[in-house]
Amino acid sequence: MPGFQRHVFVCINERPPDNPKGSCKAKGGEQVRDALKKKLGELGINKLCRANNAGCLDQCSEGVTVVVYPEQVWYGHVTVEDIPELVEKHVVRGEFVERLMLPDQPHLNGARSAPPLVIPPKAEK
Amino acid sequence: MPGFQRHVFVCINERPPDNPKGSCKAKGGEQVRDALKKKLGELGINKLCRANNAGCLDQCSEGVTVVVYPEQVWYGHVTVEDIPELVEKHVVRGEFVERLMLPDQPHLNGARSAPPLVIPPKAEK
Repeated sequence: MPGFQRHVFVCINERPPDNPKGSCKAKGGEQVRDALKKKLGELGINKLCRANNAGCLDQCSEGVTVVVYPEQVWYGHVTVEDIPELVEKHVVRGEFVERLMLPDQPHLNGARSAPPLVIPPKAEK
Repeated sequence: MPGFQRHVFVCINERPPDNPKGSCKAKGGEQVRDALKKKLGELGINKLCRANNAGCLDQCSEGVTVVVYPEQVWYGHVTVEDIPELVEKHVVRGEFVERLMLPDQPHLNGARSAPPLVIPPKAEK
């Protein structure tokens, strides 16, 4: 159980199609997760940062919703096209992607970055 | 988007019944999640700590697997009966439940506790 340096949860919750909130699954949650897993694999960092399915993160109207731990940075309206930036900036370099961040995240205390990923030599691409 | 003080992910991943690793769903992941949600609701802290379904956390043989963020404490073989202790000790008081912790969690740097939950007066039971 080595622990992960970062752990990214992608909501893939499904609601009935007539639900006014919509749902992350209907908005492409599974495709976002697949793109995330693929990108982490390509960079050879999928043992350092895990991508996970998550059930409802309670931000349905902002879907696809993604939360990155341990920082607990919340991202909304995430698309497949956003994944390279999210991985290269936040996961690898620790720089939050401000344009995708949900508003009002007081628990961050104004932080916009966190330590970069520590990539051991054997895990480099 | 107020953020959560703690965020508990319960694996409910399902594998075919003949998979030698087993799966958290087969081992009662959904019941563990239900018990967790119920306990958080009873204590009136479900806006402070969220319980979430998670896909495979890659610890199938240790299932039901639970991980608590932001500390990233990994628990294994969690049962419905363990939930009151997990919530009252870890979620509320910040004291890790050592008997349920997976071995070898070097990312914790030996920590066995974290700050307690801050419960605003209006959220008290």
